[in-house]
Amino acid sequence: MAVFRLFWAEEGGLPADDRGLAYGDGLFETIRMVGQKGVLLSRHLDRMARDAKRLGINVSRRELATVCTRAGQRFSEQFTDDGWILKLTLTRGGGGRGYRPDPGMVPNLLVSASPLPPTPDASGVVVDFSRVPLTVNPLLAGIKSLNRLEQVMAAAELGQSIFEVIMSDSDGNLVEGTRTNLLLRKHNGWVTPPAASLAVAGVLRQWLLERLRQRGEAVAEKPITVEDVLGPECQGLFLLNSVLGIVPVRTIAGHDLPVDGGLATIFNPLETLE
Amino acid sequence: MAVFRLFWAEEGGLPADDRGLAYGDGLFETIRMVGQKGVLLSRHLDRMARDAKRLGINVSRRELATVCTRAGQRFSEQFTDDGWILKLTLTRGGGGRGYRPDPGMVPNLLVSASPLPPTPDASGVVVDFSRVPLTVNPLLAGIKSLNRLEQVMAAAELGQSIFEVIMSDSDGNLVEGTRTNLLLRKHNGWVTPPAASLAVAGVLRQWLLERLRQRGEAVAEKPITVEDVLGPECQGLFLLNSVLGIVPVRTIAGHDLPVDGGLATIFNPLETLE
Repeated sequence: MAVFRLFWAEEGGLPADDRGLAYGDGLFETIRMVGQKGVLLSRHLDRMARDAKRLGINVSRRELATVCTRAGQRFSEQFTDDGWILKLTLTRGGGGRGYRPDPGMVPNLLVSASPLPPTPDASGVVVDFSRVPLTVNPLLAGIKSLNRLEQVMAAAELGQSIFEVIMSDSDGNLVEGTRTNLLLRKHNGWVTPPAASLAVAGVLRQWLLERLRQRGEAVAEKPITVEDVLGPECQGLFLLNSVLGIVPVRTIAGHDLPVDGGLATIFNPLETLE
Repeated sequence: MAVFRLFWAEEGGLPADDRGLAYGDGLFETIRMVGQKGVLLSRHLDRMARDAKRLGINVSRRELATVCTRAGQRFSEQFTDDGWILKLTLTRGGGGRGYRPDPGMVPNLLVSASPLPPTPDASGVVVDFSRVPLTVNPLLAGIKSLNRLEQVMAAAELGQSIFEVIMSDSDGNLVEGTRTNLLLRKHNGWVTPPAASLAVAGVLRQWLLERLRQRGEAVAEKPITVEDVLGPECQGLFLLNSVLGIVPVRTIAGHDLPVDGGLATIFNPLETLE
């Protein structure tokens, strides 16, 4: 059975030789908690366990679930009834000779709690196109790894007036925001970029695609172009993030978009607590 | 004047909220030291200061140089006369709201010392082609950032018999090893991939290109194809790393290459101590 070293953030950081710091050799999850339960918790755990396996990091889903339970007991009373944020940072562990990962490395798991971020404006947010291109290694597509420097550089453009910037691939297709996946409403159905093109495959995105399909709605996973968003076929653009929810875009790069609040009611975070 | 928080690795790691761990939001340098002097030290300092500026991390070259001097005094007597390795890990600092970097963040600088790695076989090493593709964001090209998960995954293929694996871009061009730049000898001169295509632009690579040009030799910065290496025009392939030196490749993916030891004598690490 695999084991890991557990660190509570309020007691200190990871050891100096941690490979998460050295190389971004690890993963993270940011989970919206209400009391001791988490929004889409099982999907967060599924993703971290699956991506750990893809990277060859030795941890089981059951162990991660146990830590979430302990974190809920430890932190929930420090926050209001509205909820709080649980963050798990899982790294391959310490040491090794340079980049080379050793199959026997013992992972480090850092657990922290923080207040909820501000709630996005339900009437829609203002976004822009990012000047930072998105590059996705096909072997690492969708993995919520600790290699997020592109997102950091893109997020430098965010501010009071800009809620999110949309990053494009080298073909000019719109792929995702710094911390959100994209969903576009067209007259004949929904469109979202394919999983293989994503830097991070969000848990809310996957939940929502399943839910829309259950309702019999057409959902295409294919590239989204600038013309798709700015042209007459766009009936709404939505940003997806399991902490922030489903956020309609009101304005993109100065162009007003139709805002349909209907989609937001599909996802009620309180109904997905586990 | 910018300031930073200095951490000596033997006393502990960085704080739990460090952005180097969270996002790979930082840089590192690995410097071969002999006593209190470093191989190509000024170039390492130049690169870290320049790349920090590209990322918007507030640190000056002078401050970094002072830390190297202190590190030399602190660590040099712990190692043999052959030398040791000084590692600087510079991050943007702690905290912030998600990915967004705050211009006022105070960087963290972690300093560690370790023994020299084994010396590569002077008669040439065995390498292979990597199955992990290399992706380089044009805005981050050449930067020795903490986002090195691709190199980690590629380095999983290294072992007793494989010294290095060569990573290719999406066009199939050979770009670099996990920890080495490439230099190819052809009948009419030298070829190395252009700086804009590199994940990490090595300090030995730059030093060597300047030195070859000073000697009047032709050096082209252009893509290297598999055919360039396996075909009849290849007169030698070299791996460049400021710690390991200039390492000739004896065999690549089972194909023997001509080995010319002459290049190794150009670079005498002891002559570049500063």
